[in-house]
Amino acid sequence: MQLSDKTAGTLARRLYDALRERIQAGELGPGTRLPSSRRLARELGLGRNTVLDALERLVAEGFAEARQGAGLFVAALDLTPVTSPPGEARVELPPLSRRGRELLERCGDMRGSHRAFAPGIPALDRFPHALWARLLRRHQRHVPTAWLGYQTQGGLPALKAALADYLQLSRSVRCRPEQILITQGAQQGFELIARLLTDPNDPVWIEEPGYGGAQACFAAAGLERIPVPVDDQGIDPAAAPASPSPRLIYTTPSHQYPAGATLTLARRLALLAAAERHGAWLVEDDYDSEFRYTTPPVASLQGLATQAPVIYVGTFSKVLYPGLRLGYLVLPEALVDDFRRANARLHREGGYAVQAALADFIAEGHFARHVARMRHCYRQRQVCLREALAPALAEGLELTRGQAGMHLVAWLDDHAQERDLVARGEAAGVTLAPLSRFYLGEASRPGLVLGYAGADEAEIARAGAWLCQAWRETRSPRLPQRSGQADPTGE
Amino acid sequence: MQLSDKTAGTLARRLYDALRERIQAGELGPGTRLPSSRRLARELGLGRNTVLDALERLVAEGFAEARQGAGLFVAALDLTPVTSPPGEARVELPPLSRRGRELLERCGDMRGSHRAFAPGIPALDRFPHALWARLLRRHQRHVPTAWLGYQTQGGLPALKAALADYLQLSRSVRCRPEQILITQGAQQGFELIARLLTDPNDPVWIEEPGYGGAQACFAAAGLERIPVPVDDQGIDPAAAPASPSPRLIYTTPSHQYPAGATLTLARRLALLAAAERHGAWLVEDDYDSEFRYTTPPVASLQGLATQAPVIYVGTFSKVLYPGLRLGYLVLPEALVDDFRRANARLHREGGYAVQAALADFIAEGHFARHVARMRHCYRQRQVCLREALAPALAEGLELTRGQAGMHLVAWLDDHAQERDLVARGEAAGVTLAPLSRFYLGEASRPGLVLGYAGADEAEIARAGAWLCQAWRETRSPRLPQRSGQADPTGE
Repeated sequence: MQLSDKTAGTLARRLYDALRERIQAGELGPGTRLPSSRRLARELGLGRNTVLDALERLVAEGFAEARQGAGLFVAALDLTPVTSPPGEARVELPPLSRRGRELLERCGDMRGSHRAFAPGIPALDRFPHALWARLLRRHQRHVPTAWLGYQTQGGLPALKAALADYLQLSRSVRCRPEQILITQGAQQGFELIARLLTDPNDPVWIEEPGYGGAQACFAAAGLERIPVPVDDQGIDPAAAPASPSPRLIYTTPSHQYPAGATLTLARRLALLAAAERHGAWLVEDDYDSEFRYTTPPVASLQGLATQAPVIYVGTFSKVLYPGLRLGYLVLPEALVDDFRRANARLHREGGYAVQAALADFIAEGHFARHVARMRHCYRQRQVCLREALAPALAEGLELTRGQAGMHLVAWLDDHAQERDLVARGEAAGVTLAPLSRFYLGEASRPGLVLGYAGADEAEIARAGAWLCQAWRETRSPRLPQRSGQADPTGE
Repeated sequence: MQLSDKTAGTLARRLYDALRERIQAGELGPGTRLPSSRRLARELGLGRNTVLDALERLVAEGFAEARQGAGLFVAALDLTPVTSPPGEARVELPPLSRRGRELLERCGDMRGSHRAFAPGIPALDRFPHALWARLLRRHQRHVPTAWLGYQTQGGLPALKAALADYLQLSRSVRCRPEQILITQGAQQGFELIARLLTDPNDPVWIEEPGYGGAQACFAAAGLERIPVPVDDQGIDPAAAPASPSPRLIYTTPSHQYPAGATLTLARRLALLAAAERHGAWLVEDDYDSEFRYTTPPVASLQGLATQAPVIYVGTFSKVLYPGLRLGYLVLPEALVDDFRRANARLHREGGYAVQAALADFIAEGHFARHVARMRHCYRQRQVCLREALAPALAEGLELTRGQAGMHLVAWLDDHAQERDLVARGEAAGVTLAPLSRFYLGEASRPGLVLGYAGADEAEIARAGAWLCQAWRETRSPRLPQRSGQADPTGE
């Protein structure tokens, strides 16, 4: 017997590995007497203690057993389940579940891109790294012991307090700090909502087109997703089927994702009335409301209707950065304790030092200043994108209007062009998100969701020029003009 | 009209709030003409621009509308859904779902405790804070921009590489780095497993007694949890019902949680055979295997059977600290990409700077040294607990044997005593986790799960002395001796 050089670890570990391998391969069958430690030591040129260590471990793990006065024997066990099969035979593994397969269908290839025009990426190049690192250091140096353990407060109280003030001022959200639950991103918030407020097969209204992250989360929770069309006033409850009654209504009222409309007051009222009529919860996803360039942000739905069943979902992924994994829910008082307990049980809490840094970032005014800077930056980048696309715009390409957000939608002639452009972009290093990906059903109108926030002006100009050229080359000769459909998203 | 002093924000914001409030309260009904900006400015002593800002915002949000040449009017909308109800009238909110209520039943009150004898808390007082803070600083100073965005690699490659080496050496896990998926804690791993590999109402075998976190996660996923009894050899597949066939088998083979047994080789083989027979996945939760005081850790089930359907679940909550929220899955090659995509879609990835610090912590040997120190520390603390309980042990209290882990189980006479002691502990500031809490069904034997890892020697001595006294006072006079049942957990 030889010890493999490939195996890492001490000599004793390598001897143990080698013996166990021979036992599992059946070369040393059940009941076989193992050589004595003396003999093994002599033959392998190992110290006797090394050999004894290895043999003891075999006994401890049940592969060998000592018989009084007769030495060690391979255990009399049927090792078939752990026998290494000959060659490279593949064993049949149990399959994915039905819900697993359905979920994966909505996952795409999930290869992240930070190039123009990947949507949803903030200006990471403008993030105040030095300041943020300083705030982190402040709280990482002397961490209260309790922060390291299992926390169950629903988030650091200082962060909840700072956030409640900020939300009241800038989003007209009405809440006490205790109504806030800090989560590891908005996705965790959707998940808790689905777990606690819905049962499998319950219907949920989803904006069409809408946000894939929420769609996937509700799909994973087994909900029946009912697409509700969006037009230039936002989601239209009158266009939803009268039955079945939804248990949840998911909406992005400040800035519909991805089509860009702001939900009008009339629609807000209609949506609240529909929620009441159906006994549904309204889930208000306020992902990028801070970035309205020329007018103050529209007040939240949550603050509009204090007694309505509204859960406000917030994230720091857009204002700070996605890798931070911090978001929050603003819950009606009646749900606070249930959500806190379920979150602590299902997901556990953590990252209190980061939460403390974020609380300071907000309370010391850095957050508001960063938002203001980013608002200015995104406004410039949007202008830059419109300028880069000017040649195509002159020839009939249409972009959504709106002085807000982190992306625009470019409307295309047909789905063949959409597919063609996405494929060309992939080859050319330009990320183009097809609008059809945001639809649950058939996409009513083809387009591209062009994120401009994460790319600097030079990249936007470069990628924009490329897109103009590609757009021209892919125009359908049969459709020189845009189709007659109304722009569903103009603001 | 007066502006409230309670409202924060600019004067314009306060005026907007005040006007909106009167509109929502119905004091300014639909169609009412609003006073002119001049008049409002004069009456309230405000600048005209301030008033115009407020009025513009009311118009922008749809509460007021301009009529050519006639001024501003309250919008002709039925505001009933957002009308503030008189007084403190509570509105009926939609109820929790059935699965939500069931989940909450398994959540207890989820108030964290770090006192003796809270189980599952590592020695946070011994954590190398300065070293860890230094490693964090190293990676937080110059963060690659991509780390801030949406990552989709299944975790930082450097961490996966360091971890694969460590797992191979110390846990005999066989994997390439690519088979590892970094998660935000073990709970997220359970959740992905349930989502992708099971459908609602699928049966899952759960150790009885067992780990509440996994139980809750599988419950939330809608699985039928089948308790399978544990004895002194670990989970016993022969004691499970022949049908229905489980889709998952959840086990803690290295150190059964909470009863402490190590799964014997015979049982490992039986469990693997059962998994194959039923077409089930084995979920190996290896939460604290590092802390075996006198013998090397038992090799993992994953490494024992390379071709078997085993998913290895690891966590850094015990070796580092729970608030870190980092765990991982070791997946068969066939599942790697599906799990990576579903995780990126459902939970998103993040915290790459922390992952980089952890990769260094492992690769530079700090991890192994910290484990060795904690092993020594926990051994001492266990000795300390046994000594503190010596008076009661002399009078018949029984503790689980075993030179491993972070807790011991103390067996009690009856459930009344268990309840009594837990309540007395609460009053006295001693955390006593009742064993019955770890059962899905009726607890077969009452006891207390005594965590000793997180408390220092002085606290263990103090709380132990208190427990001896309380135990004596609560002994049932009818049961001076232990019941005749076999100790299910002695190793």
